Amino acid sequence: MVEFLGGSSMKFLAYFVFVCWFTVPPVEGRVRHYKWEVKYEFKSPDCYKKLAITINGRTPGPSIIAQQGDTITVELKNSLLTENVAIHWHGIRQIGTPWFDGTEGVTQYPILPGDTFVYKFVVDRPGTYLYHAHYGMQREAGLYGSICVSLPDGESEPFSYDYDKSIILTDWYHASRYQQAAGLSSIPFVWVGEPQSILIQGKGRFDCSTPGIQADLCSATNPECTPYVLTVIPRKTYRLRIGSLTALSALSFEIEGHNMTVVEADGHYVEHFVVKNLFIYFGETYSVLVTADQDPSRNYWASVKIVSRNSNTTNGLAIFNYYPNHPQRNPPTVPPPGPHWNDIEPRLAQSIAIKSHKGYIHPPPQTSDRVIIMPNTQNRINDNVRWSINNVSYNLPHTPYLIALKHNLTHAFNPFPPLEGYDFANIVEINSFLYKPA
Amino acid sequence: MVEFLGGSSMKFLAYFVFVCWFTVPPVEGRVRHYKWEVKYEFKSPDCYKKLAITINGRTPGPSIIAQQGDTITVELKNSLLTENVAIHWHGIRQIGTPWFDGTEGVTQYPILPGDTFVYKFVVDRPGTYLYHAHYGMQREAGLYGSICVSLPDGESEPFSYDYDKSIILTDWYHASRYQQAAGLSSIPFVWVGEPQSILIQGKGRFDCSTPGIQADLCSATNPECTPYVLTVIPRKTYRLRIGSLTALSALSFEIEGHNMTVVEADGHYVEHFVVKNLFIYFGETYSVLVTADQDPSRNYWASVKIVSRNSNTTNGLAIFNYYPNHPQRNPPTVPPPGPHWNDIEPRLAQSIAIKSHKGYIHPPPQTSDRVIIMPNTQNRINDNVRWSINNVSYNLPHTPYLIALKHNLTHAFNPFPPLEGYDFANIVEINSFLYKPA
Repeated sequence: MVEFLGGSSMKFLAYFVFVCWFTVPPVEGRVRHYKWEVKYEFKSPDCYKKLAITINGRTPGPSIIAQQGDTITVELKNSLLTENVAIHWHGIRQIGTPWFDGTEGVTQYPILPGDTFVYKFVVDRPGTYLYHAHYGMQREAGLYGSICVSLPDGESEPFSYDYDKSIILTDWYHASRYQQAAGLSSIPFVWVGEPQSILIQGKGRFDCSTPGIQADLCSATNPECTPYVLTVIPRKTYRLRIGSLTALSALSFEIEGHNMTVVEADGHYVEHFVVKNLFIYFGETYSVLVTADQDPSRNYWASVKIVSRNSNTTNGLAIFNYYPNHPQRNPPTVPPPGPHWNDIEPRLAQSIAIKSHKGYIHPPPQTSDRVIIMPNTQNRINDNVRWSINNVSYNLPHTPYLIALKHNLTHAFNPFPPLEGYDFANIVEINSFLYKPA
Repeated sequence: MVEFLGGSSMKFLAYFVFVCWFTVPPVEGRVRHYKWEVKYEFKSPDCYKKLAITINGRTPGPSIIAQQGDTITVELKNSLLTENVAIHWHGIRQIGTPWFDGTEGVTQYPILPGDTFVYKFVVDRPGTYLYHAHYGMQREAGLYGSICVSLPDGESEPFSYDYDKSIILTDWYHASRYQQAAGLSSIPFVWVGEPQSILIQGKGRFDCSTPGIQADLCSATNPECTPYVLTVIPRKTYRLRIGSLTALSALSFEIEGHNMTVVEADGHYVEHFVVKNLFIYFGETYSVLVTADQDPSRNYWASVKIVSRNSNTTNGLAIFNYYPNHPQRNPPTVPPPGPHWNDIEPRLAQSIAIKSHKGYIHPPPQTSDRVIIMPNTQNRINDNVRWSINNVSYNLPHTPYLIALKHNLTHAFNPFPPLEGYDFANIVEINSFLYKPA
């Protein structure tokens, strides 16, 4: 969010590049090439058929699996009919390659229909990351996936496990993202409401007998909506790399009868702590270790529940399958109901428990040079309801900032530094092209 | 469709420009400026709420009203979120301004979200024309309108009337054009089926009690779907400028108890002939004269029926309202059922009756230099079902032809002349980048 930092952002960026240049050990990596085609396809991830945006026919898209120091190239062909696209590599620092960050309007123009664009960047840190569309609401249509960066051969992490697996959690709406977006920008504001289902690695379950559902659009026997199955070998330990890309929902993830040890948060190793429920907000990733140490003669439920909001969305369910039980065999138990939506105590406990792993602390500066206060509010601007920071609501510029800077098009964006404070007594409705220079 | 004419097209174009330059009388016209914003909005044109693409909040968009020789400027702002747009001015010759023809992939790149593009062209011929989106299936979402070009002051047409009125007929689908397009490009091919309603100047009526219709999406009392009303003063004569922009349907238009005199077809004056039903195919325009010469104490139905296909779509209905009767007062009669869908005789009779008006004949050359046969077929190409001409199915190039020619990017399109004939005995599956040079 360069625009909120304004003039200071370039200095910050320069500092950042300088520091990293000398602190990241140079690792000779491999080049891993991916060839993707993005298009619309009918999918029934929760048994209800709707249009999704797929990569090579899939949603979630293919996982990017790499080692620290590898170079990733993604040759992306936009096969949407009239729509542009851009993909953001969430958590990847893009050191030396800011133009491949995939943030439409900030670092690049979008990729036009029929065009192919090659993203090329280095994954310089081990950890669990995500990629997702960064243009309009395309992410909500299923255009996302996971990035898993392991250590180079011979190096080891501060914990051990037998296998790892990436799982992305999302909420899923039956209204198209066009309908959602048209509602959000209407006067008065129309919100789409709670999601119809929770998807676990692209699989959920909507009740097709819900009144008013068109019979030919929903089929409970569609193989696309069989529950996601996580097969485990008894006594082995699994690293689950869990990410959330919900539009709005905060989630709780649990595996019936199993504890989870949190070992990584957003690409950073953390001091280990044990949870029964993992709370995860959108854009976050965690690694948890789970050992298959329960009665191996049966399967168990993995359950995802919306917290923080009093949602009527049914919990998402997957099967934690002990090999050699049949992967589709339902556990003999009632799925865990999950925590109460407004029980904040365990959520607070998790937040407090997250501390950098002792061997991997990057201490922040002891004192600040500047203090920037950034309260986030919902403002009414020209009768539209808009999210704002310091009463400044972000508008995408016509010319992406990075392209404007490269070509010295200083008229293409507002060059004034943004407000650093917030006049609580006098809330004013301003937008990014109207505020006064500091 | 420059691509089917290939190498010869440039010569043809040069000839055309040359001829027109010396034959069109120079008329000093006015500049008429239009400022349009294109965006998504929920609309209920047939009582069923769905997303439409509007211009300044309306579908059909604003009519362009001009006199022969006027210059039209349309300042178009694309306020779609992730989608590009382009508008074609159907029937306007764009002499000297081919780059403003609005055919995406042929004469221009599309207009990106947030961008504004100014179309500027001269309407050099009087007549009835249309404009519509020329990108993907955006036209089917409601992005269209009419262009009405009258004679300069003091000049007169070969017929007389008191008032004129533009009416566009379309078919309307409840499936989004994304759903339609994804179906058409699926393997196997999925067709959306018959339209849910016929719109007369953007107004239709779908039966909200149809089983399976979500109650909150359909309201028979929505004022947006009151029938279109054509108010007439008894004994006056009206020129109805009727255009069709259906996706597939051929239509019959009639006004209960009134004859219509055809005076113009596709911007050309024709010898007058009288019809009870006007048959009209997509992309066509007609002017008909109707005199309000019936019992003025009541209203009459105007009815539009799908012909050529055995469609189950309900006829479109409008009210032909004799002033001062209430415009919403239903006629006391049952609406005319329209001709039988496969009764071809009156359709043939209409085709045969269309002849250039005697004072306005542009005779074709007496002999041909070349004969080009162009049968239109539906082919299976890489398992997709595609329309083809001479077994060549059109693919939009990445770089629009006109832009490629301007910048001498001859590698950007296939430079070989296309097939002029068709080997009926050996149908082969080829596409525009695979056929052999002649």
